[in-house]
Amino acid sequence: MSPYRKEISPVIWKDNSLYLLDQRRLPEEERFLRIRTLDELIESIKNMTVRGAPAIGIAGAYGILLYVKKFRGKKGEFIKGLHAVAEKIKKARPTAVNLSWAVERMMNLVEDSNSLEEIKKRLEEEAKKIHEEDMRANRKIGEYGEKLIKDGWTILTHCNAGALATGGYGTALGVIRRCVEKGKNIKVFACETRPLLQGARLTAWELKREGIEVKIITDSSAGFLMKNGLINAVIVGADRIALNGDFANKIGTYALAALAKENRIPFYVAAPSSTFDLRLKDGSGIPIEERN
Amino acid sequence: MSPYRKEISPVIWKDNSLYLLDQRRLPEEERFLRIRTLDELIESIKNMTVRGAPAIGIAGAYGILLYVKKFRGKKGEFIKGLHAVAEKIKKARPTAVNLSWAVERMMNLVEDSNSLEEIKKRLEEEAKKIHEEDMRANRKIGEYGEKLIKDGWTILTHCNAGALATGGYGTALGVIRRCVEKGKNIKVFACETRPLLQGARLTAWELKREGIEVKIITDSSAGFLMKNGLINAVIVGADRIALNGDFANKIGTYALAALAKENRIPFYVAAPSSTFDLRLKDGSGIPIEERN
Repeated sequence: MSPYRKEISPVIWKDNSLYLLDQRRLPEEERFLRIRTLDELIESIKNMTVRGAPAIGIAGAYGILLYVKKFRGKKGEFIKGLHAVAEKIKKARPTAVNLSWAVERMMNLVEDSNSLEEIKKRLEEEAKKIHEEDMRANRKIGEYGEKLIKDGWTILTHCNAGALATGGYGTALGVIRRCVEKGKNIKVFACETRPLLQGARLTAWELKREGIEVKIITDSSAGFLMKNGLINAVIVGADRIALNGDFANKIGTYALAALAKENRIPFYVAAPSSTFDLRLKDGSGIPIEERN
Repeated sequence: MSPYRKEISPVIWKDNSLYLLDQRRLPEEERFLRIRTLDELIESIKNMTVRGAPAIGIAGAYGILLYVKKFRGKKGEFIKGLHAVAEKIKKARPTAVNLSWAVERMMNLVEDSNSLEEIKKRLEEEAKKIHEEDMRANRKIGEYGEKLIKDGWTILTHCNAGALATGGYGTALGVIRRCVEKGKNIKVFACETRPLLQGARLTAWELKREGIEVKIITDSSAGFLMKNGLINAVIVGADRIALNGDFANKIGTYALAALAKENRIPFYVAAPSSTFDLRLKDGSGIPIEERN
């Protein structure tokens, strides 16, 4: 099945069912997986079927709906189960704060005074709202970001902060999309992004699909290109942003920031407010996930 | 056939035959190719069967011996052919200066007043001398470099500047070998070195073979490790060094240098005098090769 609209959205809730675009198979194959259980969702977040901080936040919110839709029983039992589900989802991936942000936003709606049906209805509305707000936020990020980018510029980006990483449109790639919509002539260098190649597989696929000129480079080439004046700006996404502006993103992002500084090239982080962690004073408290 | 001594040497001249360790097949397979013709040698340099600036210099010198050993005819014809061979070898790869350095050193021996037999003998002696001198130079580089490295340090290196890139022992890895010989406890991070993975395939193979602790990292991780205090020094090789100290090396080396500067970590280039290009005032004149 392919529930694609013209616009890419990696997470789709339709007819009470959750579908995730299997990003492990891109660009060879565009395949949506139907997610039927909470365990399937958590596995999909862990194994990167769905990835990108905003997108996993949205998937997490819909994960709660999977529980809501299946539950048959009394309110007390529902609430108890809901808390367990929320905790389980929040732990699926550590660095991106959007996951716990979305789950907590859902949980804050649960008021004991409401009926079970009312709570269920509000949770369903909230999950959809989280998705829609993210898409709107990305368009707004695009509008703000576009003003910073001059016609004719070449932009370097890392990993995939595109439609595939969000509810749609993208953060860093949203800025690039907006520039193109406004008629600016923009070229993109995409770091291949070892080890999982999100740049080579996802960013290149996403931009080519819309006819935006993109070249894949090895991560190690970025500095050389900056040094030689071939990059006008760097735009990346973020997994978590602390109150002082410190942020975490894919391995290699710090190197790009330091190289941009050395070469006096503007470096921008494009992210929605759901990526801010208001409990962290600086980046030292951000948990960094490690994989095998 | 495996003409290995205990020590790795990627270029071997034995019983009037030239053998190259096929570095494209490492680490899966240790296979030497017998090189019978000049065209085979040039193809082997172009396709990276043999690579590393000093090693291709040595291979180039032996390439001239292939011509010398096969030639049957008069002196005038020999000299004419020799010049054509020299030009062809020098063009096989552009960035590493050692290739033209070795070939020119051989050509400087050719004096019209000498007999053909005398010229042939001197060329053969010179090629062997170039190889032996490189191995001695590497041990000397190791001795000088070892003094800069403290016991317990973790060294970052890029690409392969090891025995495999030289006549034996290595330049950057020669420093590490010497530290280990002197009883220093040294750990190595090897950048995998995209796109051809010389770090992951060659440096890791070479160091593990001698029991030196090595971890492969993505090129993009180097900055993060520096920032987190996990790297005490960076040592790399070079393809060409200009008079002002500018140098060219594998893509990604500039980024490591800038990141080392940002993090106040010592950065060393280990290379023999054959890598200096005394005709170049600065690095802007170094030709950079590009591959498909």
